[in-house]
Amino acid sequence: MTSFEKLNKIQLKNNTRLCVGLDPQMEKLPKPIPKNIEGIFEFNKIIVELTSKFVSAYKLNFAFYEQFGSRGIEILEKTLEIIPESTITIADVKRADIGNTSKAYARAIYEHFKFDCATVNPFLGMDSLEPFFDYKNRLNFVLIVTSNAGSSDFQKLKIDKKYLYEIILDKLLSNFSVQNLGLVVGATSENEFQKVREIASENFILVPGIGAQGGNLQNILEKNRNQNLLVNVGRDIIFASQDENFQDKIFQRTSYYYEKLKIF
Amino acid sequence: MTSFEKLNKIQLKNNTRLCVGLDPQMEKLPKPIPKNIEGIFEFNKIIVELTSKFVSAYKLNFAFYEQFGSRGIEILEKTLEIIPESTITIADVKRADIGNTSKAYARAIYEHFKFDCATVNPFLGMDSLEPFFDYKNRLNFVLIVTSNAGSSDFQKLKIDKKYLYEIILDKLLSNFSVQNLGLVVGATSENEFQKVREIASENFILVPGIGAQGGNLQNILEKNRNQNLLVNVGRDIIFASQDENFQDKIFQRTSYYYEKLKIF
Repeated sequence: MTSFEKLNKIQLKNNTRLCVGLDPQMEKLPKPIPKNIEGIFEFNKIIVELTSKFVSAYKLNFAFYEQFGSRGIEILEKTLEIIPESTITIADVKRADIGNTSKAYARAIYEHFKFDCATVNPFLGMDSLEPFFDYKNRLNFVLIVTSNAGSSDFQKLKIDKKYLYEIILDKLLSNFSVQNLGLVVGATSENEFQKVREIASENFILVPGIGAQGGNLQNILEKNRNQNLLVNVGRDIIFASQDENFQDKIFQRTSYYYEKLKIF
Repeated sequence: MTSFEKLNKIQLKNNTRLCVGLDPQMEKLPKPIPKNIEGIFEFNKIIVELTSKFVSAYKLNFAFYEQFGSRGIEILEKTLEIIPESTITIADVKRADIGNTSKAYARAIYEHFKFDCATVNPFLGMDSLEPFFDYKNRLNFVLIVTSNAGSSDFQKLKIDKKYLYEIILDKLLSNFSVQNLGLVVGATSENEFQKVREIASENFILVPGIGAQGGNLQNILEKNRNQNLLVNVGRDIIFASQDENFQDKIFQRTSYYYEKLKIF
């Protein structure tokens, strides 16, 4: 089964478009959890146990593991082991490199870590993405419009009659299949989300920027009209509280988003 | 001392603009070296011992370590320990992410691994780069024109009267200091190198694409006219031979580039 099919199936089964970002920060760990590298794994384990029935995917951003070096990557590996088969895993790596090197990155993500999906950065051009797309059964989410303010700097530059992100999107759509190509569009760019959704009607769109970053979930859902969508929530769930009762608070926030992101 | 000053000093002392790419690939390890993860460290150690007097920097591309997961990152950490203080280290990571996450990446590179320099990808905009540039004493090489064919896809798109890479360059130059901002321009794009060199006359330019990728070193040197430059050679040195006598061949290739890249 391809990751695209798996994600579709899981979304229907778990009845949600929710993805949780497992992006731990040591200084934000709840009080009962030791503020060390083992604490991070303990925290991830609690999050997964609390949320796995209410999500369709987990997104792990490598930055939060890489900052602890090899021991951090070990925690990432251990975390992957405890994520149940009933959910999809996304390597949020935003990787990009020249062909030869991109191949090693793709091998890392899909063969070593065995993720279902990855995020990739298109700036280096099509040949830099191909090694990821050569894994025909995996789903690659390419950055189209990111959720930060800086997305205006270059992604939204106008070139003749189109914006850079549209030119990138056109090129991707004419080269890669719906099964293989996912897109990242930040909830903070509603107009661009609408445009991308119209052009790429069947592709999965991964939407970050909800919660701590201020994107409006309701507006995105209205513009999406039941198409393939995966909405990531990170900090607003995992750092819902640092108090003794953090598990209740995390569960409450998960339930809130689960309800909002129900399919039926 | 800033990384910029350190690199300048080392280039004068070692009398070379050569940087060697420590990008090991298991299948290409020379015959006498065991084809396992320990073999990769052994290989790196031999390369460093053979070359350190003839280079000013080592560039480590994370892809070649990440593909072996946490154990690969451990080898990267061990390799950093054996690189002598008389050379500069560059984390070739081409990282980019939104502010909060970019901060964790910058912390990884500059605080955990303690690199002198890093490569970063500008696609996400200025706020995604800032966490790297907040380390005022480090040198960040931003991708301007990469060495792969795909650099034409988006980097060389014309927007009004300028190319995307020029627009990016202008924005970088007006925001970041010469001490803090380095640039990556592939040797395979000679015209673009000339243009960037004219606009950014004092910044360090890191040039990949020599050797296996087919860039012409002589042409780049002529266009550079003794300005701040660092030329990376990877495969053409480290995989010079897989035979028993690989050390001689590596030494020969290093000497060849060392001579070409002498400063005086």
